[in-house]
Amino acid sequence: MPTRSSKTAPHPLDPLTADEVLAASQILRNHLQCADDEIRFKVIDLAEPPKALTLQYIYHNGSAPNRKARIYYHVKRSQALMVAIANLATHEIENKYNSPDSQGPVDADEYILVHEACNNHPAVKAEIAKLKLPPNARVLNDPWAFGTDDTNERRRLFQCYMYIALSEDDEANHYSIPIPLAPIFDAHTLELVQLQKLPMGTGDEVDEETQPWDPTKPVEYSAGILGKDAFRKDLKPLQVHQPQGASFRTSGRRVEWQKWSFILGWTVREGPVLHDVRYDGRPLFYRISMSEMTVPYGDPRTPYHRKQAFDLGDSGFGLTSNILSLGCDCLGHIAYFNGVRVTGDGNPMVMPNVVCMHEIDDGIGWKHTNLRNGKSSVVRNRQLVIQCTATVANYEYILAFVLDQAANIHIEVRATGIVSTAPIRQGLHVPWGTVVAPGVLALNHQHIFCVRIDPILDGDSKNTIAYDECQPVVNEPDLDPYGCAFRVNTTVIEKPGGYDLDISKNRTFKIINEGRTNAISGQPRGYKLHPVPSQMLMMGPETFNFRRGIFSSKAIWVTKYNDDELWAAGEFTNQSREDTGMAVWTKRPENVKNEDVVLWHAFGVTHVTRPEGKSF
Amino acid sequence: MPTRSSKTAPHPLDPLTADEVLAASQILRNHLQCADDEIRFKVIDLAEPPKALTLQYIYHNGSAPNRKARIYYHVKRSQALMVAIANLATHEIENKYNSPDSQGPVDADEYILVHEACNNHPAVKAEIAKLKLPPNARVLNDPWAFGTDDTNERRRLFQCYMYIALSEDDEANHYSIPIPLAPIFDAHTLELVQLQKLPMGTGDEVDEETQPWDPTKPVEYSAGILGKDAFRKDLKPLQVHQPQGASFRTSGRRVEWQKWSFILGWTVREGPVLHDVRYDGRPLFYRISMSEMTVPYGDPRTPYHRKQAFDLGDSGFGLTSNILSLGCDCLGHIAYFNGVRVTGDGNPMVMPNVVCMHEIDDGIGWKHTNLRNGKSSVVRNRQLVIQCTATVANYEYILAFVLDQAANIHIEVRATGIVSTAPIRQGLHVPWGTVVAPGVLALNHQHIFCVRIDPILDGDSKNTIAYDECQPVVNEPDLDPYGCAFRVNTTVIEKPGGYDLDISKNRTFKIINEGRTNAISGQPRGYKLHPVPSQMLMMGPETFNFRRGIFSSKAIWVTKYNDDELWAAGEFTNQSREDTGMAVWTKRPENVKNEDVVLWHAFGVTHVTRPEGKSF
Repeated sequence: MPTRSSKTAPHPLDPLTADEVLAASQILRNHLQCADDEIRFKVIDLAEPPKALTLQYIYHNGSAPNRKARIYYHVKRSQALMVAIANLATHEIENKYNSPDSQGPVDADEYILVHEACNNHPAVKAEIAKLKLPPNARVLNDPWAFGTDDTNERRRLFQCYMYIALSEDDEANHYSIPIPLAPIFDAHTLELVQLQKLPMGTGDEVDEETQPWDPTKPVEYSAGILGKDAFRKDLKPLQVHQPQGASFRTSGRRVEWQKWSFILGWTVREGPVLHDVRYDGRPLFYRISMSEMTVPYGDPRTPYHRKQAFDLGDSGFGLTSNILSLGCDCLGHIAYFNGVRVTGDGNPMVMPNVVCMHEIDDGIGWKHTNLRNGKSSVVRNRQLVIQCTATVANYEYILAFVLDQAANIHIEVRATGIVSTAPIRQGLHVPWGTVVAPGVLALNHQHIFCVRIDPILDGDSKNTIAYDECQPVVNEPDLDPYGCAFRVNTTVIEKPGGYDLDISKNRTFKIINEGRTNAISGQPRGYKLHPVPSQMLMMGPETFNFRRGIFSSKAIWVTKYNDDELWAAGEFTNQSREDTGMAVWTKRPENVKNEDVVLWHAFGVTHVTRPEGKSF
Repeated sequence: MPTRSSKTAPHPLDPLTADEVLAASQILRNHLQCADDEIRFKVIDLAEPPKALTLQYIYHNGSAPNRKARIYYHVKRSQALMVAIANLATHEIENKYNSPDSQGPVDADEYILVHEACNNHPAVKAEIAKLKLPPNARVLNDPWAFGTDDTNERRRLFQCYMYIALSEDDEANHYSIPIPLAPIFDAHTLELVQLQKLPMGTGDEVDEETQPWDPTKPVEYSAGILGKDAFRKDLKPLQVHQPQGASFRTSGRRVEWQKWSFILGWTVREGPVLHDVRYDGRPLFYRISMSEMTVPYGDPRTPYHRKQAFDLGDSGFGLTSNILSLGCDCLGHIAYFNGVRVTGDGNPMVMPNVVCMHEIDDGIGWKHTNLRNGKSSVVRNRQLVIQCTATVANYEYILAFVLDQAANIHIEVRATGIVSTAPIRQGLHVPWGTVVAPGVLALNHQHIFCVRIDPILDGDSKNTIAYDECQPVVNEPDLDPYGCAFRVNTTVIEKPGGYDLDISKNRTFKIINEGRTNAISGQPRGYKLHPVPSQMLMMGPETFNFRRGIFSSKAIWVTKYNDDELWAAGEFTNQSREDTGMAVWTKRPENVKNEDVVLWHAFGVTHVTRPEGKSF
């Protein structure tokens, strides 16, 4: 079918340009008729056009839907989160509402303000003094989005976990020396709400009087501090050369590679997004994205019960994406893509090279050797990797969409960086984490991700989700005298909801187009999901952890498509009290069979830290 | 600790050399005092010395145990499988026994003889004639190891599945045109036992009179037949350069790479084996190997119920390993290792380059970006891959041991090649497989592998297997008022047996050394297994499929170590009636806690073939 993605005007699904971000902030200013410094912008992201219009445009010569922007902002002196949709074609605000009960995501400006407020507050300084730190100690803090433990709380709060660094070098690893202080600040007033102390023992109790710091050695990672001699010297260079360049072609945000074609979108919230994904000219997916992630911690001691980050909804994989520099993260021929975010004062800030794209060789893709003549045929497995690295304080998440030459899309997340640490009295152990250094506890936690898959198999919005199970034939001796037979039983999903995996039945989910038949197999054409079997959320339905993100409780979710239903735990996750996403969508008594349907897959890791055996 | 692996004499765990294979066959000849052509050799492999003696030698300056060879052979005119252990130091046969109730593995000589006997047998030719094949048709057959369906059967049988090729080119893909004949031959007498026909319909019934072939197009893969134009032209070269060479060092079969040290063993049965595996000077494993694989088919129609290959025990990953040629299968700087097998007449046959070793770059290994200064630290994930490709008729298995820089060993199997096909009347579908081309059925089946892990953590033979489960704290409101807490519960395994995985509890198995404590965590030093959750064998305990290889029924097995207990389904799997491996070892009422213990992991795939959408 025709593609019109190479037109000069932005494609309806292209990310916002810097000009568009600026235009959006201007449209809002003009609409609000207030002075420049009266508005504090938090987020400006593409407000995608309705799917129906976009498909008309892409596949049926429809006219291009208007470009629109979604704006989160505050009118200064107000704590109310405001949301506006700016039409970039008509220069009008189409929809404006405040969301007084919600907290917007963390923005860069407030993060810095809270950090400073905590470090400079006299009461905090007075507590620090009691630690009797060595003269070279520098005090730092990481403001954390405030997990929910009170449905009546309406203030915008940050819990500032505090650490020290024992070096003037700004690369010193403060996470290796946590101190027992986590003051709570109000992000709007920048007032100290509570000078919270951290437990050093097995229970909730904290030291009546903050005790002097019990010295321990820092654990550093920076080459600048450790020096070259601290690193392995016996690894010889491995270089990837592509003398003819890469095998992909780009035109604007449209990428073409090995029968694949897609638009590489990007949002502040999600980072890279794949739109209008086609293989060999056949439409497969309207949109594929990392929708959300939640990181609940398993330590009941106050305030750790509040540690539950939603790293997309609370901050954003785009916003926190690393600026990638050539030769640093990837090998071979690399293409980079920029992102754009808004500054507090409404100006666009280009984030260069936040997404990289390159090819890799993944070993043998297919091989057969003819044992009669010894001749072998080999195809190597070339892959295309679209990748970003999001830094959320101590953690790094490396998100990659990996496409191969056999029509597979692999969605990979690597969790790396530094574990979230807490202080503990030296010599003590608690069930809630692993001591990883004297006086340092790595808390047990989970990372549960949710991928959103919006299919349009062979161009039809009407698709069906079904699962196959392989089950043995039982008690049919006439049919199966030796008991070796098994059948594939297919169950079609007709209602929205959450579904479990079942390894024992090899339960595999697939997207099928009941309207089109595979000429060979005689079965509906389909695309299979290879799920990642993971332990789901351990916290029960009565907990805030569960109620804030029910997507984390089941591996598979099926919902009926609606425009703007992109985020698994709802639009506003920061200090959320209830899930306004999956929890709502899956309660609708809708038919999802042979309908415009969305498939969601939740997966993750339960992380119980294993320390190295090296002694201190 | 000292390593003496670089001595000129072979290390006790080195594979047999060509000279040693020849010496072993000579020792047996001399012992048997019979004419050269009176003996037909099947297999000569290293008979490993007792673990106790070998550890004494490696770690405590003990003397080198004698080198010994295990020989499978037949005295001609006898069908009895004979086994002898030849001492290469004393030149004596130490142990000789026949195994009349067992069938040895398939050997190359008989495979060719059976193939010829089938293709040339007048009765077979007469049936072929009824197919009225086009003049350019060539008839081929694949002799299959004969799965068990009769406990009284003692003949050595092969089922010859027949196909045609429609080209003189010897690269023509005969698997794409199966014909409804599968004669059974006796491998000793080469007599036709049964002119078995294959069902073309939904049931067992076969055509009374073999019907003329219903023409279908072949599906070819060979570049020689398809021509260059059939392949993608838009993939640009990707080259790996290692200007300073590889980072590994070898001395004999001892390999040193990135804190790793191991002896790269090899057997005809298993292919590559890792011995005496150490990390940073610390012993981790005495032996790591692919122990067995079973491939049961899920089609109850005769004779498909007999399709259950044990691709290590029936043939051997070493015996079937491809001769790898530089630049063909791998990129970068590659080291190759040879294997040696015995010919039927007792001569050594060197199999050049059956194992390759090279480094790969697996993307980012660790990264952290300091959000305060934007500086990032990145470590790439360099890995060492030890790999072989085994061709078992239509299938290829790519077995790789992948070592990384964080003390992980990844064991990877890629199943590739061509699916096992059967004829089906055009237009029909059956529940037992997927029609992948007109008249061609790909039968549903499973591949279940079993890895054997023999640990010596920190040099102690006494280790323990335990599993951790992450479970929520329930009904302890005083401890856990918000319900977020979870604990890690550890269960120590004290008895041999099979154990399930449990994703819902994040059950993870680990090897621990109860005698040594991690100085930081205060817990026993351990090494964790990241299992592959898979559907296990579907066939029930009453079936031959189950009784021949119970390892395939559970993901985890624990046994007490005994010398020579290396093969999960027992020594002789070909036409086996009972599992003489795990089934026996796990019934022993032994303690395995803080003992010399072996950990086994079974994993695999249930393969329901998905055809491409391309039309015919």
